[in-house]
Amino acid sequence: MSDTQTADVDQLKEDGSIERLTIDTIRTLSMDAVQKANSGHPGTPMALAPVGYTLWSQFLRYDPSTPTWPNRDRFVLSVGHASMLLYSLIHLAGIEEVDGTGKKTGKEAVSLNDIENFRQLGSKTPGHPEYRHTTGVETTTGPLGQGCGNSVGMAIAERWLAARYNKDGFTLFDHDVYALCGDGDMMEGVSAEAASIAGHLKLSNLCWIYDSNHISIEGDTALAFDEDVGKRFQAYGWNVIHVNDANDCAAMAQALETFRKTDDRPTFIVVHSVIGWGSPRAGSEKAHGEPLGVDNVKATKEAYGWPQKDFYVPDGVEKHFNQAIAGRGRRLREEWEASFAKYKSAYPDLGKELDLILSDRLPDGWDADIPTFDPDEKGLATRDSSGKVLNAIVPKVPWLLGGSADLAPSTKTDIKNAPSFEPDNYGGTNFHFGVREHGMGAVVNGMSLSHLRAYGSTFFVFLDYMRPPVRLSSLMELGSIWVFTHDSIGVGEDGPTHQPIEQLAMLRATPGIDTIRPGDANEVAAAWRALMTDGGHPTALVLSRQAMPTLDRSTYASADGVAKGAYVLADSEDPQVILIASGSEVSLATRAYEQLKAEGVAARVVSMPSWFRFELQDQAYRESVLPAGVTARLAVEMGGEMGWDRYVGPKGSTITMSTFGASAPLAGLQDKYGFTVENVVKTAKALLAK
Amino acid sequence: MSDTQTADVDQLKEDGSIERLTIDTIRTLSMDAVQKANSGHPGTPMALAPVGYTLWSQFLRYDPSTPTWPNRDRFVLSVGHASMLLYSLIHLAGIEEVDGTGKKTGKEAVSLNDIENFRQLGSKTPGHPEYRHTTGVETTTGPLGQGCGNSVGMAIAERWLAARYNKDGFTLFDHDVYALCGDGDMMEGVSAEAASIAGHLKLSNLCWIYDSNHISIEGDTALAFDEDVGKRFQAYGWNVIHVNDANDCAAMAQALETFRKTDDRPTFIVVHSVIGWGSPRAGSEKAHGEPLGVDNVKATKEAYGWPQKDFYVPDGVEKHFNQAIAGRGRRLREEWEASFAKYKSAYPDLGKELDLILSDRLPDGWDADIPTFDPDEKGLATRDSSGKVLNAIVPKVPWLLGGSADLAPSTKTDIKNAPSFEPDNYGGTNFHFGVREHGMGAVVNGMSLSHLRAYGSTFFVFLDYMRPPVRLSSLMELGSIWVFTHDSIGVGEDGPTHQPIEQLAMLRATPGIDTIRPGDANEVAAAWRALMTDGGHPTALVLSRQAMPTLDRSTYASADGVAKGAYVLADSEDPQVILIASGSEVSLATRAYEQLKAEGVAARVVSMPSWFRFELQDQAYRESVLPAGVTARLAVEMGGEMGWDRYVGPKGSTITMSTFGASAPLAGLQDKYGFTVENVVKTAKALLAK
Repeated sequence: MSDTQTADVDQLKEDGSIERLTIDTIRTLSMDAVQKANSGHPGTPMALAPVGYTLWSQFLRYDPSTPTWPNRDRFVLSVGHASMLLYSLIHLAGIEEVDGTGKKTGKEAVSLNDIENFRQLGSKTPGHPEYRHTTGVETTTGPLGQGCGNSVGMAIAERWLAARYNKDGFTLFDHDVYALCGDGDMMEGVSAEAASIAGHLKLSNLCWIYDSNHISIEGDTALAFDEDVGKRFQAYGWNVIHVNDANDCAAMAQALETFRKTDDRPTFIVVHSVIGWGSPRAGSEKAHGEPLGVDNVKATKEAYGWPQKDFYVPDGVEKHFNQAIAGRGRRLREEWEASFAKYKSAYPDLGKELDLILSDRLPDGWDADIPTFDPDEKGLATRDSSGKVLNAIVPKVPWLLGGSADLAPSTKTDIKNAPSFEPDNYGGTNFHFGVREHGMGAVVNGMSLSHLRAYGSTFFVFLDYMRPPVRLSSLMELGSIWVFTHDSIGVGEDGPTHQPIEQLAMLRATPGIDTIRPGDANEVAAAWRALMTDGGHPTALVLSRQAMPTLDRSTYASADGVAKGAYVLADSEDPQVILIASGSEVSLATRAYEQLKAEGVAARVVSMPSWFRFELQDQAYRESVLPAGVTARLAVEMGGEMGWDRYVGPKGSTITMSTFGASAPLAGLQDKYGFTVENVVKTAKALLAK
Repeated sequence: MSDTQTADVDQLKEDGSIERLTIDTIRTLSMDAVQKANSGHPGTPMALAPVGYTLWSQFLRYDPSTPTWPNRDRFVLSVGHASMLLYSLIHLAGIEEVDGTGKKTGKEAVSLNDIENFRQLGSKTPGHPEYRHTTGVETTTGPLGQGCGNSVGMAIAERWLAARYNKDGFTLFDHDVYALCGDGDMMEGVSAEAASIAGHLKLSNLCWIYDSNHISIEGDTALAFDEDVGKRFQAYGWNVIHVNDANDCAAMAQALETFRKTDDRPTFIVVHSVIGWGSPRAGSEKAHGEPLGVDNVKATKEAYGWPQKDFYVPDGVEKHFNQAIAGRGRRLREEWEASFAKYKSAYPDLGKELDLILSDRLPDGWDADIPTFDPDEKGLATRDSSGKVLNAIVPKVPWLLGGSADLAPSTKTDIKNAPSFEPDNYGGTNFHFGVREHGMGAVVNGMSLSHLRAYGSTFFVFLDYMRPPVRLSSLMELGSIWVFTHDSIGVGEDGPTHQPIEQLAMLRATPGIDTIRPGDANEVAAAWRALMTDGGHPTALVLSRQAMPTLDRSTYASADGVAKGAYVLADSEDPQVILIASGSEVSLATRAYEQLKAEGVAARVVSMPSWFRFELQDQAYRESVLPAGVTARLAVEMGGEMGWDRYVGPKGSTITMSTFGASAPLAGLQDKYGFTVENVVKTAKALLAK
């Protein structure tokens, strides 16, 4: 410990205020929990306890008895590894637990017992904060930078809700969004993208508190990170404030006051802190990601003037902290509820809409305008039919909104004749995320966390740029909608850098996300119907650049089968061979089927837009689609082969991609890689001959 | 076209200089190629033709007759969609084609015929520039921001080579690296990460030229991107220069002079340009990604004072451009070769080393110090054994270098007692990439492109943050080494955000990358042997956080089997059931095998560290490992199930993860998810009973 630090700690011992007691309770709970778990990150909670304390006790508008209050301020712990800071705050604030439906369980969100069981199986206190798992956790964090991006989405959601629903005398939405970030967050590109978006959008309801402690896992940040972060944020258009000592609660309060008063841009507060403050490991990377050790814990408690007790919460601390927060929050929440009740009388339609939004439901008749597409040999690209369907839903479900990473003219996600969401129009519905796929993903998740049905779109190959938020949307069971167009070598001339191969497998391998690759315009409509009604998980809609026929559903089976993931599209009395396809290859399979039929071969075509949905069906249905007795099975898909063995079996085969693609007009590529009627027919016959 | 533009164009017509002719040749070739292909991006080549012309003709140290010259300046077209700019430059410069071994083919790298066949199957001019496919293309670009990151890696490689090999009187390495970037590059987080790394490292040999045209696909960049990019780069520690008009070749030359003179930081030149300059679509997003149209092409040529001919190259243009470049480059290259010949006499050991590096070979005995690990029930984590093996190789292969995204103490990739690569020591070998996985990936690829065997490491789940460069390493067939540790729910307490599930499938689904998940310390040694000798593709080494036994190879088969991807580790006379496993589950499988044996069940254990390698074996070998007759097969792997059907077949089963994991000590997770000897034995027996 440096001399200055020793002096600070000496001073601290003499300060027996309830504020200090509360701050040190947060610190010691964090230390003790990590020590007992023998795993975790003590240093940041110890450094930032005063920051968390000041923010929650003096500013956060939150009612611990009603953690679902829609207009609560949001607190995002982007430094998810500092989870013990959040668990301590939740515990001391007395946040009450709610279940998945929002009902109170009668339990504390985080009990002292949960803290004692930090990082243990089944506890409410996993290593990193998990949304849905622990009440009071606003988003799952840990993968760095994601919380930053989520916070931008939450701030956007507030602006949109305020623009649409606030009326004279009814300020239903005016909450702020705070994110606590660290050096790691600041190094990640996703936070840079999100910060640029937030600056552009002038989100004055957004405040990032950046813990600048000059320590990263490998040592001093000077090893790799010596840029001027404050200046960078000025370049993004943020207001930048420095707080020179994380222990200076007054300075922190002043900075937060400045944020509250700033109405033209987001605020970035740089807090200079000492990791593991007060411990013998203070200021060292050794305080970051491992327990302090029994002796160091002892020495630190001594330095704090703390009794040598584990998990000690002094009398009065919980009451003080809870009252500070609830004293402000409960009144605000009650006023809000009264106001909302009046609002429903004054604006019944908007009130109903808000009720639907906040309970994650859809209005009756939401899908009434979804078109049915007539049979058409030329047809259209599924990106185009998707654009039409989306445009038919949005007027009924205005909170279905989103945009593209600078590709809307190509992904067809723009809502026609609708304004853009821009700093001068927060009621706009078309979002321009810029060429920032990763930031877009994190922002969309943040919007979903605020009950909007948010979508983000880009080319399918650029899923690679936004894998982390796509994964997190699954982990959090969000209804985020990912629209991926240009889904295969069908991209053609742009070549292999732009042609997805392994991306379908990547999504299908991810737990909890539905991946739908529809085979014509009516399957697109069915896909939107399915994904809109199943908002308890994300959906990736994988769409073509190129046109494909709209199948004649009087000849072939109804596209309603999409909801089951796979269905028999065309059949023969006693099929000898099954062609399985998705997306643009469905019509290829039907053409091959017709030719096989003409040649007297009894074939079946299975359209299989979603493995996820098919696997959820019962064995009887799956057997009815893919009967075990028919072992000559051929999967046709312009993506990689990975995973198809499951459906074609050892006697089946695939026409898929085993290499990257090439730059050429599509017809040449189809020929080169075997996606032709001739090759499908030939391969199917070869299977039968085996 | 604005009035100013018209005036400019009028002036242009009167300027019949060879410089102007060359610039307009680049412009018109680009327009014509896109028009004929009916696909592509004309606007940026038209805007930046003067920039490319000035850079190549006056600055680039390059010999068109020897495009493999190691000390050539590098030109990276990060705006890969503007590929026609690069193809025009390569064609007019007269770069001669070399084959994969570096031998001249006697052909032009890009002929006029290639340009006429832009974006056609088999041409040298794919939609986006592809490394290895077209001589003169230094890296594959298109996915935005990647070229920026690659250029940082190339600049690092130059600094390292210079530090190690330059001697008094022998400046073998002093080349510069230029990257041409656009608004899209600047919006992507990966370029932000790479720029921060470059600023930190004070790479004064690096120059980014930023085409600021205020146009993105959705329209004016004001829609989503109004940050002060120059100020941001100042915050990163770059020297920032503005060129107010892309047509002002003198100003451009002056900026490049300033770059050449700046020796303490990288240079960022902001060039203000008009997309589609001179055309009726100038300054509009319509000039970006589609052909101008026949009428517009005609009008533009008229504006340029150009004859109405397609693919017209005026007499003297090629000669002028070639001579400008070769006049400087050939002499420099010849001097370099003479100098290198002398160097080999003066410094024979270093000379030999350089020969090996430049021909992508390894020294004799490079693997002599790789340890053999003794049997040990407690064993060690594969991240630890990998650290030991890596440390045994580097002294023999000093150009095997890299680092971690701020996780070296955890990924064990630090080289002991070796200096770090820092601005005050460019000879260092330990790289500190910061918490910038994506930037690290792009930088490592850039280092690989300069013949270094570069590695980057992070936790396996954070593969998600760096998917684009991992994919590009495969597409470019680079020997990049990706070290991924903390490879499963074995991570334990950190919980589901940090526990990879689908990541193995993601890699295995990607063409051209070898994914090796070794099962003990000796398999780790074998994996390093395999990946070092096979440098023609990237390898992902997937390693555990937790210890696993070092198997007794006198009882079990030799770890040399790793080279074949899968091998019989333990067997019975007439095996009834096959247990297949990788990584930490190999020893679990052997323990289950021993128990089955004790109970009289004849089992086989197949260790399967690499699907990629196994699929390359002949049918006879594959059948010998997984005989078709044994259908009771059980795969055990602490990752997702995707893809295992191929090896276990319809009568087999898997013990794998079907959900995300949870935060808890590992033993609890193993129990929860069935990774126990009891469950493996039980499941194996159940398969036999079917």
